[in-house]
Amino acid sequence: LANNETKVFRKRFLDMHFYDQAHFYLSLEPDQRKQLYRVLNAHEVGDFFDTIEDDLPEMTELLAEMDTQYAANMLNDMFDDNAADILEHLPKEDVDRYLSLMNRSDAIKLRKLLHYDTETAGGIMTTDYVSVLEDLDVGQALAELKRVAADAETIYYVYVVNSDNLLVGVLTLRDLLVHDSHTKLAEIMTPNAITASVHDEQAEVAQKIRDYDFIALPVVDDQQKLVGIITVDDAIEVIDDEAQSDYSGLAGVDVDYVSENPFKAASKRLPWLITLLFLGMLTATLINHYEALLSTASILAVFISLITGTAGNAGTQSLAVAVRRLAVNGDNKPKIWRLVLSEVLTGLVTGVITGLTVMLIVGIWKQNLILGVTIGLAMAAAITVANLAGSLIPMLMEKIGFDPAVASGPFITTLSDLTSVLIYFSIAQFFLNAFLN
Amino acid sequence: LANNETKVFRKRFLDMHFYDQAHFYLSLEPDQRKQLYRVLNAHEVGDFFDTIEDDLPEMTELLAEMDTQYAANMLNDMFDDNAADILEHLPKEDVDRYLSLMNRSDAIKLRKLLHYDTETAGGIMTTDYVSVLEDLDVGQALAELKRVAADAETIYYVYVVNSDNLLVGVLTLRDLLVHDSHTKLAEIMTPNAITASVHDEQAEVAQKIRDYDFIALPVVDDQQKLVGIITVDDAIEVIDDEAQSDYSGLAGVDVDYVSENPFKAASKRLPWLITLLFLGMLTATLINHYEALLSTASILAVFISLITGTAGNAGTQSLAVAVRRLAVNGDNKPKIWRLVLSEVLTGLVTGVITGLTVMLIVGIWKQNLILGVTIGLAMAAAITVANLAGSLIPMLMEKIGFDPAVASGPFITTLSDLTSVLIYFSIAQFFLNAFLN
Repeated sequence: LANNETKVFRKRFLDMHFYDQAHFYLSLEPDQRKQLYRVLNAHEVGDFFDTIEDDLPEMTELLAEMDTQYAANMLNDMFDDNAADILEHLPKEDVDRYLSLMNRSDAIKLRKLLHYDTETAGGIMTTDYVSVLEDLDVGQALAELKRVAADAETIYYVYVVNSDNLLVGVLTLRDLLVHDSHTKLAEIMTPNAITASVHDEQAEVAQKIRDYDFIALPVVDDQQKLVGIITVDDAIEVIDDEAQSDYSGLAGVDVDYVSENPFKAASKRLPWLITLLFLGMLTATLINHYEALLSTASILAVFISLITGTAGNAGTQSLAVAVRRLAVNGDNKPKIWRLVLSEVLTGLVTGVITGLTVMLIVGIWKQNLILGVTIGLAMAAAITVANLAGSLIPMLMEKIGFDPAVASGPFITTLSDLTSVLIYFSIAQFFLNAFLN
Repeated sequence: LANNETKVFRKRFLDMHFYDQAHFYLSLEPDQRKQLYRVLNAHEVGDFFDTIEDDLPEMTELLAEMDTQYAANMLNDMFDDNAADILEHLPKEDVDRYLSLMNRSDAIKLRKLLHYDTETAGGIMTTDYVSVLEDLDVGQALAELKRVAADAETIYYVYVVNSDNLLVGVLTLRDLLVHDSHTKLAEIMTPNAITASVHDEQAEVAQKIRDYDFIALPVVDDQQKLVGIITVDDAIEVIDDEAQSDYSGLAGVDVDYVSENPFKAASKRLPWLITLLFLGMLTATLINHYEALLSTASILAVFISLITGTAGNAGTQSLAVAVRRLAVNGDNKPKIWRLVLSEVLTGLVTGVITGLTVMLIVGIWKQNLILGVTIGLAMAAAITVANLAGSLIPMLMEKIGFDPAVASGPFITTLSDLTSVLIYFSIAQFFLNAFLN
């Protein structure tokens, strides 16, 4: 790049929005990116790195392309929540190297942030907020705001603290603008600020920001001292990510993984399919166990898929409702056993009605009342049990500390195949015996 | 309420955050709410109505409890996007009555907003934004901001327009604060503002706000004139609602509908279950058609649920991936046919591997190579077809203007039961014939 071209390029690049800069940067080849590092300083690169998703798989390689000091400077210049999110995904020795090359006080802040569990308020908060002492007036607060405006992640909320750094109130920039510069902050601040604790779950905190329409939420430690804020852009990301993972869980596939290479895509889906295939083999073994019954009454085979299919559908509905209701925070969160009971009763009502319907259809179609009753009863019981499994299993998973996403839709339907077949053939066997005697 | 108590109550109530006020208000009985309308003025009620979800089913009754003029005043005082969202759900004659009782210019604004399709940028934008003329300086802009601060939905972004109301740039309040009051806006504004068109889909606009970390996004009409803004709190709601509806679609149940009454819950789920039951009856009829084959080789019944179950699982994965990728906006949006092809190829790879696995298991278990090959082949073909259905059907639904949510997980698995059984028995029939000859 000639000197003149560099200038033109810099102007055009820096005129773009950070997100578009990041988009452009990620579309480059490694060699082109290395040229970019020569044209832009670490601060300018940090600006658009703030908009790159932190869980980008190639992040380690991107940083490795840069000069180590340059990368450390860039991380130093980024908002510290974003820098911490990147560091979190790096190997420990890389983290230590970068931190040792940073400004000491910033490195200490980052180390603290890295200490919090990633899925908590502490894990997503930033320390780049604006706080002022409670005895200032509006004019002094505005002066302080101007001073720190360049480094703060948001200047639209100003947090009022006492000399012990306890949060005593919150002010919006709007409040500051409309009041006279000699007004004391204590007179105009909102005293009982809504806060999050560093230990709160990120989903809960994001929901709070959504409910209250906040641009940022202050985070306090166990002593009620202000330690950070969570901004609305991070809340959106949390809400979106949690929704994606619930969705992926229900489908039994990571929908975030996009590949048009069928071998790669298949390699992501096969482990789960094959695992469920073995669970399905249990169902096959069970049916095999009833082969004598089947050869006596081969008509029974006609309705296997109707019963397993319908029960699977009901179980999937139950699962989805249970997972969503478990994700709800606050007052609306149901007691676990009450939710399971409600789902089982719903299953019973749905089961009885569906069972009666199918009994009528089969009874008329096959002109066989006993067969109709068998299918109807089996359907009702299978649906009730599927609802029990659909609501109970994700709860148990969560209780014992497993990822409830394992209780995916495919898992519930495959498990429900097993219970449905067991119920169906037990009832059929009973009726056949009653019929033969 | 005695006079003194009223004062105490007003103070305590108004000290709460609007969201908590709304929460309290919604927990009251109708009589208590009527008392509240006497203690609070329409403006104070409007403040917390701004935080109530617009699709609340009881909204019509809540408004009917109020004096009509009081309700009109309240709607008039609300941010106009929220007022429009409420009006949208009311019967036409109510809307006309309220609008006729409002400030004339506000009523005209609201009528315009009501005119846009609800799912577009026009349908969710507010006209309560701050715009200034391009020839002002920073001091003048700040003065204008102070003047309108109370009525604007956000004052943190200031939109710069020319005398024709064409959007020429955007400024943040941060920019205004850090620059000298005599600086011309044109010098410091960001000239190429990212905008949305009134006709853009709400999901696309919300994604833009998320990507760029905006607090608000300006909306322009076909002549590039500024007509409104969309704030980040509305973007979160859109992202959350779209995620909920994708999730509900995958499960074949409205997960937003919460009822612990099993009869009510069942009444929401039964229509879909019974519809699918009839589709399932087709599968039963098909198996019935092969009854002769089944009575000759009753071993075939053992593997029906294994094949339908596994294909259903694969189809669900395919569906989830297709629906999510269809929801992606911008450059990443795949061509429809390319996506279907990629899913079918993925199905082929998954199918062949799963088929080989099951062929081995069955071949060894039953010591029957022909049976193993039959099951393996049927499995491979059934999975491929399930992936085709899982990716193609939601696309077709969208293409022909149906809600793609109809292509729910349960629908795909039930349809896949039908195709899987057809494939399975066709292959079995072929092998049996080959075997017998």
